[in-house]
Amino acid sequence: MPTDPAPRHYPHRHLLGIEGLSRPDILTLLDMAEDAIEVSRQIEKKSSKLRGRTQVNLFYEASTRTQASFEIAGKRLGADVMNMSTAKSSESKGETLLDTAITLNAMRPDIIVVRHSQAGAAHLLARKVDCAVVNAGDGAHEHPTQALLDALTIRRNMGRIEGLTISICGDVLHSRVARSNILLLGALGAKLRVVGPPTLVPRGFERMGVAVFHDMTRGIEGADIVMMLRLQRERMSGALVPSSREYFQFFGLDEEKLKGAAANALVMHPGPMNRGIEIDSFVADGARSLIREQVEMGVAVRMAVLEALAHHLPNA
Amino acid sequence: MPTDPAPRHYPHRHLLGIEGLSRPDILTLLDMAEDAIEVSRQIEKKSSKLRGRTQVNLFYEASTRTQASFEIAGKRLGADVMNMSTAKSSESKGETLLDTAITLNAMRPDIIVVRHSQAGAAHLLARKVDCAVVNAGDGAHEHPTQALLDALTIRRNMGRIEGLTISICGDVLHSRVARSNILLLGALGAKLRVVGPPTLVPRGFERMGVAVFHDMTRGIEGADIVMMLRLQRERMSGALVPSSREYFQFFGLDEEKLKGAAANALVMHPGPMNRGIEIDSFVADGARSLIREQVEMGVAVRMAVLEALAHHLPNA
Amino acid sequence: MPTDPAPRHYPHRHLLGIEGLSRPDILTLLDMAEDAIEVSRQIEKKSSKLRGRTQVNLFYEASTRTQASFEIAGKRLGADVMNMSTAKSSESKGETLLDTAITLNAMRPDIIVVRHSQAGAAHLLARKVDCAVVNAGDGAHEHPTQALLDALTIRRNMGRIEGLTISICGDVLHSRVARSNILLLGALGAKLRVVGPPTLVPRGFERMGVAVFHDMTRGIEGADIVMMLRLQRERMSGALVPSSREYFQFFGLDEEKLKGAAANALVMHPGPMNRGIEIDSFVADGARSLIREQVEMGVAVRMAVLEALAHHLPNA
Repeated sequence: MPTDPAPRHYPHRHLLGIEGLSRPDILTLLDMAEDAIEVSRQIEKKSSKLRGRTQVNLFYEASTRTQASFEIAGKRLGADVMNMSTAKSSESKGETLLDTAITLNAMRPDIIVVRHSQAGAAHLLARKVDCAVVNAGDGAHEHPTQALLDALTIRRNMGRIEGLTISICGDVLHSRVARSNILLLGALGAKLRVVGPPTLVPRGFERMGVAVFHDMTRGIEGADIVMMLRLQRERMSGALVPSSREYFQFFGLDEEKLKGAAANALVMHPGPMNRGIEIDSFVADGARSLIREQVEMGVAVRMAVLEALAHHLPNA
Repeated sequence: MPTDPAPRHYPHRHLLGIEGLSRPDILTLLDMAEDAIEVSRQIEKKSSKLRGRTQVNLFYEASTRTQASFEIAGKRLGADVMNMSTAKSSESKGETLLDTAITLNAMRPDIIVVRHSQAGAAHLLARKVDCAVVNAGDGAHEHPTQALLDALTIRRNMGRIEGLTISICGDVLHSRVARSNILLLGALGAKLRVVGPPTLVPRGFERMGVAVFHDMTRGIEGADIVMMLRLQRERMSGALVPSSREYFQFFGLDEEKLKGAAANALVMHPGPMNRGIEIDSFVADGARSLIREQVEMGVAVRMAVLEALAHHLPNA
Repeated sequence: MPTDPAPRHYPHRHLLGIEGLSRPDILTLLDMAEDAIEVSRQIEKKSSKLRGRTQVNLFYEASTRTQASFEIAGKRLGADVMNMSTAKSSESKGETLLDTAITLNAMRPDIIVVRHSQAGAAHLLARKVDCAVVNAGDGAHEHPTQALLDALTIRRNMGRIEGLTISICGDVLHSRVARSNILLLGALGAKLRVVGPPTLVPRGFERMGVAVFHDMTRGIEGADIVMMLRLQRERMSGALVPSSREYFQFFGLDEEKLKGAAANALVMHPGPMNRGIEIDSFVADGARSLIREQVEMGVAVRMAVLEALAHHLPNA
């Protein structure tokens, strides 16, 4: 007679970053996400695990894909989802993030998903509210669900993460995606490299056990995964903004450069892509690209996170 | 012993335009819409036909009534509806319509309802996604659900469409409503006229069997239906923009001009109206106006379209 | 054998203002709100009282908290909630509030919640639609759900409203909150005062039985409730805008000034707060502050109002 598997346990009230998560915490979320994939592949994509729960998406930076992914994830779990974007917020009336958070908290939401331009915003919020907080990106700090979905995508395609050589390439300086991925993939035993121009790679990676390359060819040589980052020119100023053409020549991923990676290397990008700048369309849309699958895994990972946090909700 | 009627069959995966629909396709959608009317007239306006389905409203042009109509239609069918308007989209980060569509598609929606300023946008999108696509207006090209709701409104009030004389009046040049209506009402056997100043009526209608008039009095003489169009001044430039007063004098519908139509002629407008420009308030709000009923039929037609497409959804 | 209590009766089709409500009407809504509080304190915050009903939030002025509160209230009652904010509306295409309302009405919503910058907008709308209308703030006129939530908060903390001395302080001139509260708290027998600089207190309060003070210390002397108002500088112009520092010195509530109130006086603010202008953070976040509780009561009151109006909906 089959017995139910032991319930998975995620021991934290929030998901504020990969920092602070243990290897078992990460594996719990990835395993829960595997199950969530199937929900979205059914005709009736609906569970009732979060029925009657209130999820607030509090986005201070516009983001098509991340907000949509969290909204779809919550709705497929049966939650009531409320979007609050900057334009609608009270910030124009001079209210701070914290006052907004305290106000929302008094409406007794179960989960607040927050994106903000300032590093630490999600942590600050988590200290002030009773509900669970999910960091959907705080400045250049962390973007934990992106790292989880990347790891899930890699694990499903490579069968493992441990021992893989993963090159994270491009605008590392402005990338919360890079930071969260380095923490997560490092915890799961990947061999990590960052690759980019000296101006876009901050110091200190060697101390974290991450190899640094300023030459793209050498940086992706033999890599199993080539993870490209979006060039965030909107966060740069004046003379420091590289020209698209020059950037593509040296750090854009095309089929020629990709030949130097491992024979079965796969390509990732968190989106939105700057085609022709950090990545060539032939690669982005080619057989080695995992980019669309990353998006699908994003919904699954967010469903897993929302479900995991629901176990710790007030009164639950 | 009564038997269920044979199930209605809409054989297409998408609704991209009236072009390409057969007369039976159109009648199927109109008949399904008749049933949908009743749902919205009940206290509990809710069916579960689209329960667990994900509908995305992807609007690159603002539209109160069309987006609201699709949102209400989807929710009344039990779908999870997600709105994505331009301001929230990734276009500000340089992502194209196609990348947005491919990204959304990976989240496994069932239906994308798209409005875009460029003709052909819905067709382009439909070639790239696995889900059903509904064209909610693409540039000056097509707006098929508007034509369907107009036909439904006419049929319910006149008892038929075949043989009716229908005058479509005003800014025909910029009107996707006119184009879709000419295709649909023509397929159902109406006698069609377009009426407007030479600058606002493109060439080529005669070849489609549509009579062209540049004089309003003659254009609506004996007409059973006078369908007014919105003057889209925001799509005109400089010297070509007619003055409101002059336009109203020659092409605005008032009670005086309406006397020349058939004795029981009815008046339509797709909204939003420019009162005092293309239509006088006495006519717009008068006993012969079908304008409010058009809006109600809009919800019913969109429910029918969403339901019809659901039969072709992946895995369904 | 216990019998069900007699059903509560709210005899109006709309909630347009406190003006026109009787004392029993107000008490009915407050008692219904007491029950609604419990829904939001459960794990599954969901009833089905408004299942299949369509609620439209039509907001012509941005408002984080009020729109969120109505959205959460509607969703927790099981309604389908649709938000329409200015940016998405057809006003940019020249459509008026009334045409928008008539259009929406034809989609057969059950309830329209409207916020508009013009006094009387909700009344105007109510005369044109078949559904129930809730005024969520019309210019400087009324904001009835705010007054109801304030009264509920006071009653729960003080045990009563009758006989309490309540000082409403600050920018009374621009405040619909002040106006609705004076009507409601007056109807329930509170002793009312308004306190503010002569430029921000309109004439005529004495005739309503409200004492007027231009000195803060005297205005809150012995008060049981000190209700602060937001300084609405965005509605002032040029030379008349007080400096923050000067305003705070004379009319900002701090612990020192609060000492003059009753020993167990409590502090309220409708939010969003201008900290350091009309209220000091020590007071706003202190033990005497009811500000967070006001927000929670806001959801409960709106649930009560939506439920009360549902009994009068067409076909219900």
